[in-house]
Amino acid sequence: MAVYTDISEIQLADFLTDYGLGALLSYKGIAEGVENSNFLLRTEAGTFILTLYEKRVNRDDLPFFVGLMEHLAERGISCPLPVHTKAGEALGELAGRPGAIFTFLEGMWTRRPTADHCRAVGRAMAGMHAAAGDFGLRRENGLSLGEWRPLFESCGDRVDEIEPGLAAAIDEELAFLEANWPADLPDGIIHADLFPDNVFFLAGELSGLIDFYFACNDLLAYDLAIGLCAWCFEADGSFNVTKGRGLIEGYASVRPLSAAEVAALPILCRGASMRFMLTRLYDWLNVPEGSFVTKKDPREYLRKLRFHRAVASAAEYGFDIDRVTQ
Amino acid sequence: MAVYTDISEIQLADFLTDYGLGALLSYKGIAEGVENSNFLLRTEAGTFILTLYEKRVNRDDLPFFVGLMEHLAERGISCPLPVHTKAGEALGELAGRPGAIFTFLEGMWTRRPTADHCRAVGRAMAGMHAAAGDFGLRRENGLSLGEWRPLFESCGDRVDEIEPGLAAAIDEELAFLEANWPADLPDGIIHADLFPDNVFFLAGELSGLIDFYFACNDLLAYDLAIGLCAWCFEADGSFNVTKGRGLIEGYASVRPLSAAEVAALPILCRGASMRFMLTRLYDWLNVPEGSFVTKKDPREYLRKLRFHRAVASAAEYGFDIDRVTQ
Repeated sequence: MAVYTDISEIQLADFLTDYGLGALLSYKGIAEGVENSNFLLRTEAGTFILTLYEKRVNRDDLPFFVGLMEHLAERGISCPLPVHTKAGEALGELAGRPGAIFTFLEGMWTRRPTADHCRAVGRAMAGMHAAAGDFGLRRENGLSLGEWRPLFESCGDRVDEIEPGLAAAIDEELAFLEANWPADLPDGIIHADLFPDNVFFLAGELSGLIDFYFACNDLLAYDLAIGLCAWCFEADGSFNVTKGRGLIEGYASVRPLSAAEVAALPILCRGASMRFMLTRLYDWLNVPEGSFVTKKDPREYLRKLRFHRAVASAAEYGFDIDRVTQ
Repeated sequence: MAVYTDISEIQLADFLTDYGLGALLSYKGIAEGVENSNFLLRTEAGTFILTLYEKRVNRDDLPFFVGLMEHLAERGISCPLPVHTKAGEALGELAGRPGAIFTFLEGMWTRRPTADHCRAVGRAMAGMHAAAGDFGLRRENGLSLGEWRPLFESCGDRVDEIEPGLAAAIDEELAFLEANWPADLPDGIIHADLFPDNVFFLAGELSGLIDFYFACNDLLAYDLAIGLCAWCFEADGSFNVTKGRGLIEGYASVRPLSAAEVAALPILCRGASMRFMLTRLYDWLNVPEGSFVTKKDPREYLRKLRFHRAVASAAEYGFDIDRVTQ
């Protein structure tokens, strides 16, 4: 649920004179993305998305995000393609905010992912990793291992309100992750937020990836771990090994994993669970009631973390290790 | 800002099988309307609006609203046309709510109305009144004179928090309106909420009227009074006689006013100001902070009420009485 900024038809028509998209026919604020304001535009040239970047997005990161989408789209990844102004710019300014116009992707995110969806997501994730390999910009992950303890500490002394003993459990888990986090795995640009609402399907086929505003340089297999957390658990909290196998085998069919990556999957999944638990925990304790931001229960990721802590080897995620390694 | 109900792509695709619109391509929740959830749909047949009716709308009124839009669209009024199911129904049910699909209207509402906009709105309002003349259903105005005092009383004893002395002033004004409200003016179906955000323009021309969910049977000139309140005041609170003339002369160019209607305009404008002040007052005192509903300042309509109380004759609205009467 978004749309923070209202824009007038006069401002928008003026903004559009910089583009070769013909006259503005209509625009509607849409409930998509939580960091930015998004509008569905219709002009004489077709249907587009206008994104205005709100305060939570660092302006200095915008050339990375917008450039990455352009780079990926040029390499055949189905993602929003930034539309250039007549002067060749992908970023403009509207209502005092940086803004960009993107091509519109048909498709819908799936509320009920199946193993087939997971396999398609795995393939698309690996395709994105490969296509981003020669992108020229870097962006550090602002929510990686080193940021977790400060984020935890900023939650203050109310963490045990969520569940008694939680603060001590997080402290212990962070110590484990800090001591054992893998250092020498392949890295590159990852999506870092490839949840179901960021993947569109059309007629059963994956039709696009959106929302690259957490994309960054990090371990490639960490993106896969985020995917396992985001796609492969059922509503009752159980891990679905068929979906796990689909996601991992789909990924490896495009980019085979190394034995070290496979071995690291359980700890990467523990880290991914920690990362989403901590941001949810922070929001749970700090976002005012009744805000536009829907607060998500951090305990969902606490349960996922506990599942991954109990995993003895990556084989428990449901796949045949020989089939996915190089 | 709306979108109260999330719907899954599975529910929606299932709902669409009742229609002849081809496959679903995408849908986005849009920030339009405050009483309902609205989605912009794209199907193989084109672009549509899906409206889900939330609790604030009485289900028994839906055949009136949807039937009226169909009646008006068939008579050439540019408004959303309900799309029928293959079985011929304009209303269905989705996610436990009544729902309807409408054709999509291009155009944008104007944040800065000019006298030309007002003239076009006047013409469109009169055209709507004429086209609705032979519509077969009736709906009483749930926010007419008789409802104002109960609404005022339901605001309780906190009215003077808005402005000292306000409760007594409202009580006195209501007594005047109750004693002097005109009884014998032409009546018919009115829009009753034709504010700038419910009128679309495209390339300077009026392209459509939307949001008929306050439409009802009432005095036709009362709709014009609502329009004078909604369109003809400047941000500094002053009445713009050029806009007033545009609205009234535009209206009368399609449906000439009677001398009695012209004479009644000041009291009808006082009533319209009272109606919007009271609903805003009620929301101001009763809607919780941080809610999705943006609260509007009731004092804006208090100032408009005071302007209309000081008007000695309708001529002060800026028009030539001879030009607008039959």
